[in-house]
Amino acid sequence: MSAQEAQWSEFVGNHAGDGILHALRTGPYSFETGGFLPEVVIGYETWGTLDEQGSNAVLIQHALTGDSHVSSGDSAEAGWWEGFVGPGKTVDTERFFVVCVNMLGGCYGSSGPSSLDPEGVPWGSRFPFTTVKDSVRIEARLADELGVDVWHTVLGGSMGGARALEWAVEFPQRVERAVVVAATTASSAEQIAFAQAQCAAIRLDPAFADGDYYAAQAPGPVAGLGIARRIAHITYRSEPEMEVRFGRAHQLGENPLGSPARDRGRYQVESYLDHQASKLVSRFDANSYLVLTEALMSHDVGRGYGSVDAALARTAGVRFLVAAVDSDRLYWPEQSERLAASLPVPVPVNYITSPIGHDGFLTDIDQLSPVLESDFLSPEH
Amino acid sequence: MSAQEAQWSEFVGNHAGDGILHALRTGPYSFETGGFLPEVVIGYETWGTLDEQGSNAVLIQHALTGDSHVSSGDSAEAGWWEGFVGPGKTVDTERFFVVCVNMLGGCYGSSGPSSLDPEGVPWGSRFPFTTVKDSVRIEARLADELGVDVWHTVLGGSMGGARALEWAVEFPQRVERAVVVAATTASSAEQIAFAQAQCAAIRLDPAFADGDYYAAQAPGPVAGLGIARRIAHITYRSEPEMEVRFGRAHQLGENPLGSPARDRGRYQVESYLDHQASKLVSRFDANSYLVLTEALMSHDVGRGYGSVDAALARTAGVRFLVAAVDSDRLYWPEQSERLAASLPVPVPVNYITSPIGHDGFLTDIDQLSPVLESDFLSPEH
Repeated sequence: MSAQEAQWSEFVGNHAGDGILHALRTGPYSFETGGFLPEVVIGYETWGTLDEQGSNAVLIQHALTGDSHVSSGDSAEAGWWEGFVGPGKTVDTERFFVVCVNMLGGCYGSSGPSSLDPEGVPWGSRFPFTTVKDSVRIEARLADELGVDVWHTVLGGSMGGARALEWAVEFPQRVERAVVVAATTASSAEQIAFAQAQCAAIRLDPAFADGDYYAAQAPGPVAGLGIARRIAHITYRSEPEMEVRFGRAHQLGENPLGSPARDRGRYQVESYLDHQASKLVSRFDANSYLVLTEALMSHDVGRGYGSVDAALARTAGVRFLVAAVDSDRLYWPEQSERLAASLPVPVPVNYITSPIGHDGFLTDIDQLSPVLESDFLSPEH
Repeated sequence: MSAQEAQWSEFVGNHAGDGILHALRTGPYSFETGGFLPEVVIGYETWGTLDEQGSNAVLIQHALTGDSHVSSGDSAEAGWWEGFVGPGKTVDTERFFVVCVNMLGGCYGSSGPSSLDPEGVPWGSRFPFTTVKDSVRIEARLADELGVDVWHTVLGGSMGGARALEWAVEFPQRVERAVVVAATTASSAEQIAFAQAQCAAIRLDPAFADGDYYAAQAPGPVAGLGIARRIAHITYRSEPEMEVRFGRAHQLGENPLGSPARDRGRYQVESYLDHQASKLVSRFDANSYLVLTEALMSHDVGRGYGSVDAALARTAGVRFLVAAVDSDRLYWPEQSERLAASLPVPVPVNYITSPIGHDGFLTDIDQLSPVLESDFLSPEH
């Protein structure tokens, strides 16, 4: 157990405040594809109070590099869906008991490659191959601990949408409603392809050291992780948005046309992507990026059930809301349409209208507020 | 001059056959952005015979990693547009004198980073920053040598389309017709963004050695170049094509879900991209990839003329055919539409209908044969 984990463990079962990171030791765990950890710790935050019937629990699932801090609560830090989750908000923390869990394999409180093994050495390259199903199964242990037998709603976008859908498939008796935004039943060939290039860039970095770079004083494979983020970020946005924001403008004081010796400055869009890369590498572990990216590549609700349709058939008792961003070119709207049409009770797709692409699920989630407030999350439900 | 260049120089002015690589020493050259080479050699191939009026010359421009071998001619090797260029084909080498030039900065016969300086050392990192305008200006020297005052037609796709358009802008009096397929007036923010990630991957490879890797016995930054190619190749294809071809299938005998130690096999789409990367690194120089990619990033016909519109105004005497691939998501059809509408004499966009994306300009160019044969390249013209 790391020092950080030791600190968190003080909070286990002691919900000191809303939006404060807690940790739960969930015991040993055998992973879907064969790995094993003697102890899995899960980092999570909660907001509000579980009612006596245990009927008002909402699980919010974060995306690839997200964390459990979806709303500020009693902390000073704004959450990543601050305008959407909180007192009086669409996900009203005065009515609902809201839970957000750091995904297994991540680096924000849950066991991941940077966590320490029983001998005090980071797992690094030895951290098991992790799937979306693994994350959901571990989250079920947390639900048990919190006294949540059935989630009123499980809600997420992007990889969080994949996790919400996996909850409905793995534990259909424990999910009343699922809100799946900008996500698919299974990662597509193209999504796998973009992910492969990202993983390869991290592994190419000499500082990666086959995944066991924690002992070094150097910051690890930040150059490779930065390239991965650049690739990913392009796919999170849209061509028109980048064109309107940056076009071919040169970064102030730089000349991208180069000197005679071929050194050159940057276009604004390059500086922007450098900034995105820099922000990520300062807050995210490269091994966690690999583990979670490979988990996303493995995403397939049908695995273990014979087919996607057979898996979805399990969700007949779950009410679904499926949403997509109209300009998304990573999780294409057609994929949400296929998911919605494949459900035991097909539903229409709700569209977030945004010019920016996939990231619209973060920036424009409030477009789903009317349908959620009048239906899924209304006081009558 | 390298041994290879010495061999080519035997062919200068001695057109031994169709589809046979020739080379021309064009003398010293000052690059658009300030670089200088004491001698620029240009590799090229020709097919057919220039008529006495010099009126039947067609210039075909290759794309980023292409070469001058567009048709087999007297060689045993098929060309990259074999079905489109040749005796009796749309670009009929029995009627036209066809020329195809290896782009300046490349590695197929023209001066590039792997060429030797006067002291016999590869230029490597010292090779000047090169633009599309540079390539066209050097090609004009070749046209002079070949006795081509005016091209009947200049034709190209992707970066070849950019080069065709640049010919019309730089030398409007020397271009009667221009066929611009799947190309833009200027590289967009998104195209720059994808290119940046590719260049960064090459430079991250420890074998890159700041561009001066030729002395080493090792094959150079093939891992980085392979990642660049993977990224690029995804953008050359379409999401639906990859999904139909590969979906989530596992590569035969491999398990992408991983072992407990997280090593894993590949999805088929990963194996496919590995194969694409492997093919490219065996035939292309990483420095040339950088030089040409940065040239493509710099592509902007308006540079030096105040604006794109001012540059296009120069082409009032040129007849244009603009074409796009309907599923292209790197050179979006909207960009071809804007180009076509911005010409002094606006034209409609001809569409290549293909599910595969940008690469449709290579695989389905014959869809342009009817319009070309009945108009631009008809016997009456």
